[in-house]
Amino acid sequence: MSVFTKVAPHELAAWLKNYSIGSLVDLEGIASGIENTNYFVTTTHGRFVLTLFEKLQAEELPFYLELMAHLSSHGIPCPTPIADLKNRYLGELNGRPASLVSYLRGASITVADGNLCAEVGGVLADMHLAGLSLRQTMINPRGPKWWSAAAREVSPFLSAEDLLILEDEIRFQASHRLDDLPRGVIHADLFRDNVLFSDGKVSGVIDFYFACNDVLMYDVAITVNDWCVNEDGSIDSLRAAALLSAYHDERALSAVESHIFPVMLRAGALRFWVSRLYDFHLPRPGELTHAKDPDHFKRILQSHRSAPPQPVFDYLR
Amino acid sequence: MSVFTKVAPHELAAWLKNYSIGSLVDLEGIASGIENTNYFVTTTHGRFVLTLFEKLQAEELPFYLELMAHLSSHGIPCPTPIADLKNRYLGELNGRPASLVSYLRGASITVADGNLCAEVGGVLADMHLAGLSLRQTMINPRGPKWWSAAAREVSPFLSAEDLLILEDEIRFQASHRLDDLPRGVIHADLFRDNVLFSDGKVSGVIDFYFACNDVLMYDVAITVNDWCVNEDGSIDSLRAAALLSAYHDERALSAVESHIFPVMLRAGALRFWVSRLYDFHLPRPGELTHAKDPDHFKRILQSHRSAPPQPVFDYLR
Repeated sequence: MSVFTKVAPHELAAWLKNYSIGSLVDLEGIASGIENTNYFVTTTHGRFVLTLFEKLQAEELPFYLELMAHLSSHGIPCPTPIADLKNRYLGELNGRPASLVSYLRGASITVADGNLCAEVGGVLADMHLAGLSLRQTMINPRGPKWWSAAAREVSPFLSAEDLLILEDEIRFQASHRLDDLPRGVIHADLFRDNVLFSDGKVSGVIDFYFACNDVLMYDVAITVNDWCVNEDGSIDSLRAAALLSAYHDERALSAVESHIFPVMLRAGALRFWVSRLYDFHLPRPGELTHAKDPDHFKRILQSHRSAPPQPVFDYLR
Repeated sequence: MSVFTKVAPHELAAWLKNYSIGSLVDLEGIASGIENTNYFVTTTHGRFVLTLFEKLQAEELPFYLELMAHLSSHGIPCPTPIADLKNRYLGELNGRPASLVSYLRGASITVADGNLCAEVGGVLADMHLAGLSLRQTMINPRGPKWWSAAAREVSPFLSAEDLLILEDEIRFQASHRLDDLPRGVIHADLFRDNVLFSDGKVSGVIDFYFACNDVLMYDVAITVNDWCVNEDGSIDSLRAAALLSAYHDERALSAVESHIFPVMLRAGALRFWVSRLYDFHLPRPGELTHAKDPDHFKRILQSHRSAPPQPVFDYLR
């Protein structure tokens, strides 16, 4: 259940007078999503998604909304924020920051094949290219500083073995300087549930609320860690090759980027292992039911740590 | 035939490297349109329309592209200009100013009924509302100054009767002061061929190259003159009522606007009668085949001149 803040039709009908999208026909709560309240909104002129932000504060939101508008204007299939009559993407409804975005066709998939991975790789590269001209910036809230602090907080709950791995990986990551790597806006959470497909093509990239400025190759690694791994946490070479080739076709990778890939795969696995450990052992009130299995990313991290490092260029056809 | 400037696939494929929309899959000339060269462009990530501007100059284009981007970001179904990697809507291809816009579903209709007229009225009102917050402005290039000059140029070709009507109507329009009427961005050419429908809803408003700042009620009148007239040039009350009611529901008309409606209907008919007379008698080289029958708008004008003036509020249900 993800409708935390109720909106009545008459409340929304009045609020829509701030916009130029017609009048309210239908309002329907969206069950998925655990951070915000979302509704499908149908008006006389089309279909939209209404989001009431439950945790993010109004001052944090302009970056995400400007990013979506920017990517959308560059042809990336993502939600387009709708501006109101005062030219603002952000309003307030029932005490919450609220925004309307365009409705996107399509559905997410659970089983990825090479073709879908290639689609995702291509769109990811295009997002990276388009993001280079965005003025606004956002520091990565889940970077090394965060994972070091979070690791300390969860350490009392960990086995000696897990703690050893965690501390060793944090040291390993700290030993790499990433100054020479291309940076830009990264999605930072491009998992399968955040990509919609229609007719085998990406029809939507959603959920930009972890987007930030960081190393582009790190975003590629996060994406590969979800789209191209086997049950045992190892990389599926065929899917990885498809994703990386499509990415490289759109945005040519440098030798430095290719070479750092195995380190970035480990960084991505570490970041999500830590956040899942945190959500599992230190859940916020009412969040227990959403905690996902931390061992999934431990397996991926361990597999990366034991595998021989393979640069991107080794995967390319 | 409307592909005036040829574009070869290898030329476009290279040019698309300036954008983040994937690589070229297919390129197909669009037969309709008489002012610009248009192509359907299919890339690995979607479908777009490429326009090479044949007559408008590069310095005139930003207004139209910014307008479409602005309306699109306000939820109006219209072509969305695609920004390139340098954040520009306008590029150059094969010696022509060129832009890419989103592809829109749907098709235009030739026979309008009350339901379609209501859809158009609602979207027109929303365009007017959304346009109020656009910074850029454009003088109407087809206003009273233009129609007076154009009438003088075509006068040698007209019958004594037509000349009398034309001069009398120009005097009549000049006798009306429009200072108290709400102004904003108007489409100025919202004829049936410039509106796409899909499933009975407006899926696209296109061809913004006459858009400018003028009296909003004048735009309503231009629209009614195309969507709600009978063969003999008279207004079909049912269709007019549907269009005007839907407009009024979205953007409430004032008594002054309601009252000026019959004058604006005559102004709209005059403007298109004059431009059709001009295109018919003084065609630009190679344009003869496109000249449309001027008598169509003479009939509409004469019908308005002989009918008792009916304010908008008389039409509303």
